[in-house]
Amino acid sequence: MIKPSIPRGMRDFSPEVTVKRNFIFRSIRETFEKFGFLPLETPSMENLSVLTGKYGDEGDKLLFKVLNSGDFLLKVEEKEQLLSDSNLLSSKISEKGLRYDLTVPFARYVVMNRNEIAFPFKRYQIQPVWRADRPQKGRYREFYQCDADVIGTASLICEAEIALMVHEAFSKLGLRDYVLKFNSRKILEGIAEVAGESERSETFFVALDKLDKIGLDGVKQELYKRDFSDDFIQNLVEIISFTGSNKAKIEFLKKTLKNSPVGTIGIEEVEKVLLYINSFVGEMSEIEFDFNLARGLSYYTGIIFEARATNVKIGSIGGGGRYDNLTGVFGMPDVSGVGFSFGIDRIYDVMDELQLFESQEVSTTKILITNFEENAEKFALRMLSKIRAAGINAEIYPDTVKLKKQLNYANKKNIPYVLIIGPDELKKAVCTLKIMVTGDQAELSIEELIKKLVAEKK
Amino acid sequence: MIKPSIPRGMRDFSPEVTVKRNFIFRSIRETFEKFGFLPLETPSMENLSVLTGKYGDEGDKLLFKVLNSGDFLLKVEEKEQLLSDSNLLSSKISEKGLRYDLTVPFARYVVMNRNEIAFPFKRYQIQPVWRADRPQKGRYREFYQCDADVIGTASLICEAEIALMVHEAFSKLGLRDYVLKFNSRKILEGIAEVAGESERSETFFVALDKLDKIGLDGVKQELYKRDFSDDFIQNLVEIISFTGSNKAKIEFLKKTLKNSPVGTIGIEEVEKVLLYINSFVGEMSEIEFDFNLARGLSYYTGIIFEARATNVKIGSIGGGGRYDNLTGVFGMPDVSGVGFSFGIDRIYDVMDELQLFESQEVSTTKILITNFEENAEKFALRMLSKIRAAGINAEIYPDTVKLKKQLNYANKKNIPYVLIIGPDELKKAVCTLKIMVTGDQAELSIEELIKKLVAEKK
Repeated sequence: MIKPSIPRGMRDFSPEVTVKRNFIFRSIRETFEKFGFLPLETPSMENLSVLTGKYGDEGDKLLFKVLNSGDFLLKVEEKEQLLSDSNLLSSKISEKGLRYDLTVPFARYVVMNRNEIAFPFKRYQIQPVWRADRPQKGRYREFYQCDADVIGTASLICEAEIALMVHEAFSKLGLRDYVLKFNSRKILEGIAEVAGESERSETFFVALDKLDKIGLDGVKQELYKRDFSDDFIQNLVEIISFTGSNKAKIEFLKKTLKNSPVGTIGIEEVEKVLLYINSFVGEMSEIEFDFNLARGLSYYTGIIFEARATNVKIGSIGGGGRYDNLTGVFGMPDVSGVGFSFGIDRIYDVMDELQLFESQEVSTTKILITNFEENAEKFALRMLSKIRAAGINAEIYPDTVKLKKQLNYANKKNIPYVLIIGPDELKKAVCTLKIMVTGDQAELSIEELIKKLVAEKK
Repeated sequence: MIKPSIPRGMRDFSPEVTVKRNFIFRSIRETFEKFGFLPLETPSMENLSVLTGKYGDEGDKLLFKVLNSGDFLLKVEEKEQLLSDSNLLSSKISEKGLRYDLTVPFARYVVMNRNEIAFPFKRYQIQPVWRADRPQKGRYREFYQCDADVIGTASLICEAEIALMVHEAFSKLGLRDYVLKFNSRKILEGIAEVAGESERSETFFVALDKLDKIGLDGVKQELYKRDFSDDFIQNLVEIISFTGSNKAKIEFLKKTLKNSPVGTIGIEEVEKVLLYINSFVGEMSEIEFDFNLARGLSYYTGIIFEARATNVKIGSIGGGGRYDNLTGVFGMPDVSGVGFSFGIDRIYDVMDELQLFESQEVSTTKILITNFEENAEKFALRMLSKIRAAGINAEIYPDTVKLKKQLNYANKKNIPYVLIIGPDELKKAVCTLKIMVTGDQAELSIEELIKKLVAEKK
């Protein structure tokens, strides 16, 4: 007998959890569609030639590789050398890997279908990805990404729309306490330039990205270690220590970066995005221009975003930015795009901690009908059909067991109402409605019941 | 430069197709929930110890295996022998495989969580599965399954509910011309018994299952080949050639199988299911008792189902049945359950061929707002916010390009309305609404427009 288990770092999602996760997925999906993004799905497996080299050496190591099928050794030559080198062996017996993110498959899709696509192409994609990372709290080997990107336009309206879209999604979820930080990579380049180091801006971004985690002193240490000069670090600290409103920061940077052409363009971008948001909806209190925001991903070139819950310590719950050359690696250069990705696992944790899931989001069945002897059962089935015909999710307990057991079942499934149809009810042609949370009971006709349930649905 | 490609037998789903597929998924999901099924998700990868041996030798060969990560050769001993045998090698360097169906992971989940689950457990699961089959028309290496099962009860109410559920799902999809055939495995056993072969009923089921494809003569040939006697085959043909209404078939079988205890129980099951359906909704014209229906899967033990579209030649678009020992292989015997699985790819093909997708199911954006010079743009953004606030999916063309290009974009995306906001409209504080399918245009205020769009949504 096999004692069943699941692979390390992978998860079963119980119905209780899946119902809540589906509420999040549905809210995000509806938001994406409200903003004109169309759904795309790509296969779970990609050719390794597509995946390899796109995520750095570390990423390559984290790819899950799929064994070629059939008698895969038949086609392999010079086998002897293979046994000392896992990489060499896997290159001979594995051609496909599991998707590592949704960005590279998206770029591949765009390049392969460039002649059919209506640009600017607004697509969203909600699918799992796999990484052979060491599992730990909050880090899984299979997890969903929820991405929306628009590609084929440099318009900063798209950035402003991302801010609105984040607001809409979080509103749907009831998640009101969040901040959407944004910055421009160009401002960071400008800061590096005026502080005296325009050549090594990437290294500087990576260090600055850790500001939240390791603090200003930590960032300084990191920069010392990487041989940045005392002068540079001192200039830098002066700049990044500035605090103030979005407006005050912009004024400060206009002076500070006035000799940096790239920095100046970055400030213009930030101003334009805020202006667009203002045209859309007026002031938006959740958006914060934070010129210390770096975001590690190397392909960002313009505006970058990061969303955080303000009263749960959990890090970023979403992020994104503009890139100028996502498809270049597949032979289609100079296509600008901007995207945002929601962190579904962390959003779930935030909502759970803040108890934001409302009762209608934790159960799907609205009413359970009890099951007694044959005649009552027959009546119950007819009632069940009527309730469902009114658009209400309903079920009958399939066996004629003790009432207590049937009520327990409703409780465990979070079903709010139980309709008791026994011999007494049958005689009077009524039903007894039990409200599970209070234990209250009331006799009513089927018409009254349906009216009540339909009214609650709205 | 890599020329990008996707693996053989795998598919990208373009937005146009995904929107339609999502409509099918949503309809099936809502139906499952209406009938009290709760969503479950299991990981894409399972330990090979869980998967192997569950699908027969053929199935084992079709499992996609995932290479162990890291330097997987380190732990392998006696490597020399491995190079001549793909199976042996893969057993040493691969511990996980991709899900082959949703049934085995479901059984595994039930056994692992038996103490937390509220039985009878009604779960649905909509996830992709993978099979390393030779790709051909209509057969893919990655495809979705949409399963609903109730486990932990022998009540035939569940079978009756499956018939209703299939009806509800297909109604939502607009698929009216279908037949839901059903039978009991026990009746097939009874037929084998009275025809003179009760020992080899499994082999007989497999042959009979091909009746639709190869005809009565084909089945006879198949049985001759497998050494069934002339007598048996003659008896059999007499029985399975009978035609008539559900009622007539039952009367015929009652006589024919009166000496087979198992066959008699089978007939009682069929009658009970029809009785329950009658209690639910009265006569149901789509359900057909077909005692020649076999369905190949070996784990079915009671009622079996198969749904077919009646005016598209495509085979089964869904099927299922009752099993008595799904979880036995994982150490939890004697748990009865019944399930049904919708064939989403074939349902899509049927709906496409019959042109059942309606306009609201092929586009998600309702209205595109055009983009002209700066002042008009500012006004347009405000209008866009108002339209979205009314719950309408809307977008703005992000760049100020020629109107023709913007209209082309709307056409390609199947967006039904375009709102033209140019300098003229700005002056008069109105919008020009263009109906894409007719080309008609009308001037209206933003309030009139929103009223119109909201009314159409209902």
